[in-house]
Amino acid sequence: MNDTFLRACRGEKTEYTPVWFMRQAGRYLPEYQKVRSKVTFLELCHSPELCTEVTLQPVDIFGFDAAILFSDILIPMEAMNLELDFHEGKGPVFARPVRDQQAVDALVVPDPEESMPFVMETIRLLRRELKVPLIGFSGAPFTLATYLIEGGSSKVFLETKKMMFQAPEMYDALLRKITTCTSLYLQAQARAGAQALQIFDSWAGVLAPCDYERFALPYVQSIIRDLREVTDVPIIYFANNGATLIELTRTAGADVLGLDWRINIKDAVRRVGDHAVQGNLDPVALFLPKTDLEARIKKLLDDAAGGRGHIFNLGHGILPQTPPEQARIAVDAVHRLSRG
Amino acid sequence: MNDTFLRACRGEKTEYTPVWFMRQAGRYLPEYQKVRSKVTFLELCHSPELCTEVTLQPVDIFGFDAAILFSDILIPMEAMNLELDFHEGKGPVFARPVRDQQAVDALVVPDPEESMPFVMETIRLLRRELKVPLIGFSGAPFTLATYLIEGGSSKVFLETKKMMFQAPEMYDALLRKITTCTSLYLQAQARAGAQALQIFDSWAGVLAPCDYERFALPYVQSIIRDLREVTDVPIIYFANNGATLIELTRTAGADVLGLDWRINIKDAVRRVGDHAVQGNLDPVALFLPKTDLEARIKKLLDDAAGGRGHIFNLGHGILPQTPPEQARIAVDAVHRLSRG
Repeated sequence: MNDTFLRACRGEKTEYTPVWFMRQAGRYLPEYQKVRSKVTFLELCHSPELCTEVTLQPVDIFGFDAAILFSDILIPMEAMNLELDFHEGKGPVFARPVRDQQAVDALVVPDPEESMPFVMETIRLLRRELKVPLIGFSGAPFTLATYLIEGGSSKVFLETKKMMFQAPEMYDALLRKITTCTSLYLQAQARAGAQALQIFDSWAGVLAPCDYERFALPYVQSIIRDLREVTDVPIIYFANNGATLIELTRTAGADVLGLDWRINIKDAVRRVGDHAVQGNLDPVALFLPKTDLEARIKKLLDDAAGGRGHIFNLGHGILPQTPPEQARIAVDAVHRLSRG
Repeated sequence: MNDTFLRACRGEKTEYTPVWFMRQAGRYLPEYQKVRSKVTFLELCHSPELCTEVTLQPVDIFGFDAAILFSDILIPMEAMNLELDFHEGKGPVFARPVRDQQAVDALVVPDPEESMPFVMETIRLLRRELKVPLIGFSGAPFTLATYLIEGGSSKVFLETKKMMFQAPEMYDALLRKITTCTSLYLQAQARAGAQALQIFDSWAGVLAPCDYERFALPYVQSIIRDLREVTDVPIIYFANNGATLIELTRTAGADVLGLDWRINIKDAVRRVGDHAVQGNLDPVALFLPKTDLEARIKKLLDDAAGGRGHIFNLGHGILPQTPPEQARIAVDAVHRLSRG
């Protein structure tokens, strides 16, 4: 068992810097495309056998130091009684956005084992196969709420912010339901065998700090408090585009803070040196020629040194257009260049 | 003549905080919609009479302390010999993206007076009418280049970054042409009567700081150096989503730094206190109930105090869905609450 990743999460010394990539099980891999070509995205998410297969692929191919459960952050939202669909090229769509009290009241808080048994089964299957730690995950309540309120992806998040600003009590009622659902979901993942948990706040960066502090952070804190009572797995919190939120994210209660590529990791380590950090290569930097890519990785490793710990990752998900060979170059470079 | 805005740009004391909004001449105004309904967007941009009319509208209606020339940042790109089109709901489209040396070589650096006389004519017409200062503007070279290379708007800017990373000399040749074009264009605007110039780097925030420093900032510095030799109008530089770039943007050479809403303006003033700052209310905060909106404006004014100067603005363009009455509430609140 290679537990380098878990030790880095806990701030312990490691022989080298562990590395995994967000969306490492995904469309850039021909092996993934082959599986995906036979089923819809949601069918894939609902099949423990196929999820297990695609989760293992990048670990087997590139030697990543952690696996992340293949799923989607919106799966538990579907379980809250919402009709979810994925349209090619358009992303997730909720046919009936949640924009009034009636819609909020209609949401159920599901029992994760009953409503999402396929996720827990995937975790159990993966634990039998894996020689590296398995990361479970969820979306953060604010990020999940944006999809429910907007009815899908958004650019300016007008409906979400309107609900915050004009109906803060309704917004809070919605967020509390999502928070309870997410909390139970992550606890179930830990029980099933997830060895670390990452909370993705993909849209945190669209909020002014004062709004993040009031309308997003408290729900994350609540989930992490709940988790701490039942499990000691490391918790990673990734507030995307969160450079101006970083002092606030320190108070989320996580062990590790994920960083997007916009921040110099040296600056981040200076500001949150009491946390391990995870990140933060620009995903498009994987398109650099080999020598330049290796030089950039070396610089990033050097800049991240001196903090509580570093898990190498991209600053966002790996792009579907990435040549797989470039992922191999990056993983090998992290392993080679970080050895003392 | 109300020159409060110009004095604030120069860091001089003013009786109150001047205010204007990005996209203040725009779709949220029924008066604009009426003009726009009769012509295409590009026809509007090409008509000095109509541009003058829509530029004046928000100043007359709300009492903004500055007017900004109605135009589009891509107008000079059209003049570089590129076929530009605006598709409803899809934004700007360049039918033939600039992705190879031949396409770079085919770009011409236009004489702005010859190729964009309608812009200079608009400026002259506006100066006759206005009782507040007129702001001219351009896009920043990196931001303009993204549209040319991607062929329109983008999410991940893959083609742009690929050119940077894989063909840096071609990228530099392209950027130098855009820089010369932009430099001449802004100089012509100043000659025609623009009393301040804003450079919009709308996409700067998609770059890691090290890439911004190499692939975006030098071209802005070059434009501002050129401008300083021929005009003393204040220069505003707005690097959108630029919280992690702010120490670098300080070296751009501008008088005023524009701020998006993601940064607490107090933090910005602390970091760039030698510059006047412009911003930075979340455009969606205009949807707050009156009392809450006024409280937020008061807080922002207080947070911005103590620096070299503050021009109140939104942190991004006003949204088309904004009720005009809310703009009035905000402008009045800035004027009332900032008086000593």
